[in-house]
Amino acid sequence: MGESAAQTLETVLTPCLVLDRGRVARNAQQMQTRAQHLGVALRPHMKTAKSVEVGRLLVGEGAAMATVSTLAEASAFLAAGFVDVLYGVGIPPLKLPEAARAARAGPGRLRLVVDTVEAAAAAAAFVAAHGPLFDVLVEIDSDGRRAGVMPGETELLLSIARELSGAGILAGVMTHAGGSYAAGDPSAIAQVAETERRAVVEAASLIRDAGLVCPIISVGSTPTVRFARHLEGVTEVRPGVFSLHDLYQVGLGVAALEDVAVTVLATVIGRSQTSGRVLLDAGFLALSRDRSTGDQQEDWGFGRILTLDGVEPMGDLMVARTNQEHGLVGSRQGRTDPLSLQLGQRVRILPNHACATAAGHDRYEVVDGDLVIVERWPRIAGWRA
Amino acid sequence: MGESAAQTLETVLTPCLVLDRGRVARNAQQMQTRAQHLGVALRPHMKTAKSVEVGRLLVGEGAAMATVSTLAEASAFLAAGFVDVLYGVGIPPLKLPEAARAARAGPGRLRLVVDTVEAAAAAAAFVAAHGPLFDVLVEIDSDGRRAGVMPGETELLLSIARELSGAGILAGVMTHAGGSYAAGDPSAIAQVAETERRAVVEAASLIRDAGLVCPIISVGSTPTVRFARHLEGVTEVRPGVFSLHDLYQVGLGVAALEDVAVTVLATVIGRSQTSGRVLLDAGFLALSRDRSTGDQQEDWGFGRILTLDGVEPMGDLMVARTNQEHGLVGSRQGRTDPLSLQLGQRVRILPNHACATAAGHDRYEVVDGDLVIVERWPRIAGWRA
Repeated sequence: MGESAAQTLETVLTPCLVLDRGRVARNAQQMQTRAQHLGVALRPHMKTAKSVEVGRLLVGEGAAMATVSTLAEASAFLAAGFVDVLYGVGIPPLKLPEAARAARAGPGRLRLVVDTVEAAAAAAAFVAAHGPLFDVLVEIDSDGRRAGVMPGETELLLSIARELSGAGILAGVMTHAGGSYAAGDPSAIAQVAETERRAVVEAASLIRDAGLVCPIISVGSTPTVRFARHLEGVTEVRPGVFSLHDLYQVGLGVAALEDVAVTVLATVIGRSQTSGRVLLDAGFLALSRDRSTGDQQEDWGFGRILTLDGVEPMGDLMVARTNQEHGLVGSRQGRTDPLSLQLGQRVRILPNHACATAAGHDRYEVVDGDLVIVERWPRIAGWRA
Repeated sequence: MGESAAQTLETVLTPCLVLDRGRVARNAQQMQTRAQHLGVALRPHMKTAKSVEVGRLLVGEGAAMATVSTLAEASAFLAAGFVDVLYGVGIPPLKLPEAARAARAGPGRLRLVVDTVEAAAAAAAFVAAHGPLFDVLVEIDSDGRRAGVMPGETELLLSIARELSGAGILAGVMTHAGGSYAAGDPSAIAQVAETERRAVVEAASLIRDAGLVCPIISVGSTPTVRFARHLEGVTEVRPGVFSLHDLYQVGLGVAALEDVAVTVLATVIGRSQTSGRVLLDAGFLALSRDRSTGDQQEDWGFGRILTLDGVEPMGDLMVARTNQEHGLVGSRQGRTDPLSLQLGQRVRILPNHACATAAGHDRYEVVDGDLVIVERWPRIAGWRA
């Protein structure tokens, strides 16, 4: 079948990952408008899409800023000309040489995060020895779930800030309220957003009161940016999953089904009239083991099934069970018969969690509202810069 | 840090996937002995290791036979000189050209599987048009869980067999009892093995009684091969996960901790005395979302933590929660304090499910009982042949 430009979703080898460019552009436009409305810069998180091409759509005409989850992404976005890239995972001392390598991939600025004095001191010593290859934000814990200096740890906060400032690499503060994913409704998410905002604004005040500068005040996840009432004092937001969206975001009320820009294309490879079983060639390597919607009101198993055009849900069909390369079709509420699918038929599967599902694939088959593959965009896999 | 040959587990960028070559060799030896004892050929399933180098260790001095889960693997193993490669996932008509491309990757024989008359007829028509590029096994359903012709569907079985035989491509019958993973103890697994054996032996008899030849009679998973009482009438077994093993196999009683040959190397990137939280740089992309041990007596979260040498468990520490690039350390029974880990410290993580965890990585850092990386072996990712 080869890699000819004329391929369509009717002929390309399955399983594969399909990206609808028009939907990404629309999601990007909406988020740009939202950031503008909130009066903050948009530093989209590329951990979801892991694609320079998607990244360019996300930043639009604005400054090409990015948040990344690996040094491999940092390197790729700097090499692509992004001007300001934040690696949002705490950097241990031994990774500083790798960070420096990523920083040298392009002329843009690399920013790192730390939440301990040891890591701050190591970063300060590194730039003293090797030059100002990056600067550093202090990570703030706004919901007690993951990383960051906790509220009340003022001495720790200021020790880290002084360490960084002394080396001329204190860039600001950042937080991520992962708790927004557990909040049940828009008003609960708005409260998480306010907690997130207050945590970094207060940390910045403490740093400024100590006579240091704190230019960047960074928050964000897709839900909190969507439902925040205001972001006074914040300078930038870092939503990520909005770029592609997924069933979990739909369940949260953050997106509609037609906003989900990524699907897995699969083929019916087994169909037994006797057992009633229908099998797809999308198992847990193509869909991931993610079961996020299992905690929501509508549990879509390993993904909801759409027609080949990616527009219409096929009743309440979903991928109910997965093995490595097999997905068993089921009906969420018993409304739709899996046997309505025919052997060889192709379907699209909406993922529970775009970040997890997309990670199983090395590229996007890019479409634009129909079945023609108009481009192929590589994904930045792995960790090595 | 570069890719210099002198790297060790103390310096290589984390997270990464570590393979202990000596343990693989020992697992291979044991399985070869077991297959010999059972009087069957060993056709190891490469879906776990997805590595030609591991594959060579698994087949040892025997015929280089393999089972594979993707056409990409089929192509790679044929290209590497394997003489007989079975693609164990039902082939829909539209994938036949891709299968033909894989078949042409090397001089060895490619074998496919079908469980419908339509797919058999399509394969027969394909070889009639393009030559005998592959032959085909009929998949038999031995436990009502996934694919295959069901017991009692004699007419269907014979129709498929006749279709294939007419084209000169009937190679035999195969089954996989996925139910062995749900069986609680060795005697329950032995019963599953017997059901699996009987299903294919009876199917082969029916085919032979109809005057057709049925040379290959193929069964197997790691648990059923381990605990089968005998495999009379069977010609080959297809275990896979034995090559690397994992916590799930340990929980099943199929392997011991020291048989697990694959671990994720991770670094402590966050440590808060105040919160008691310790974070590793191995999140769900490095470990997978797999939670297989959640159904077992010992639930190890997203993986059990070992010392850097990969030998000693660190008490009952495990990865209790994951985000994309963060793993939160927890204690299974509250016996070991996560704060016993230091910032920057490196640990090894035993996976729940080797197939799922390894799939997040593009290569193995190969060690041989100590910390020196002696080789790097690529993994065969994706689906495209």
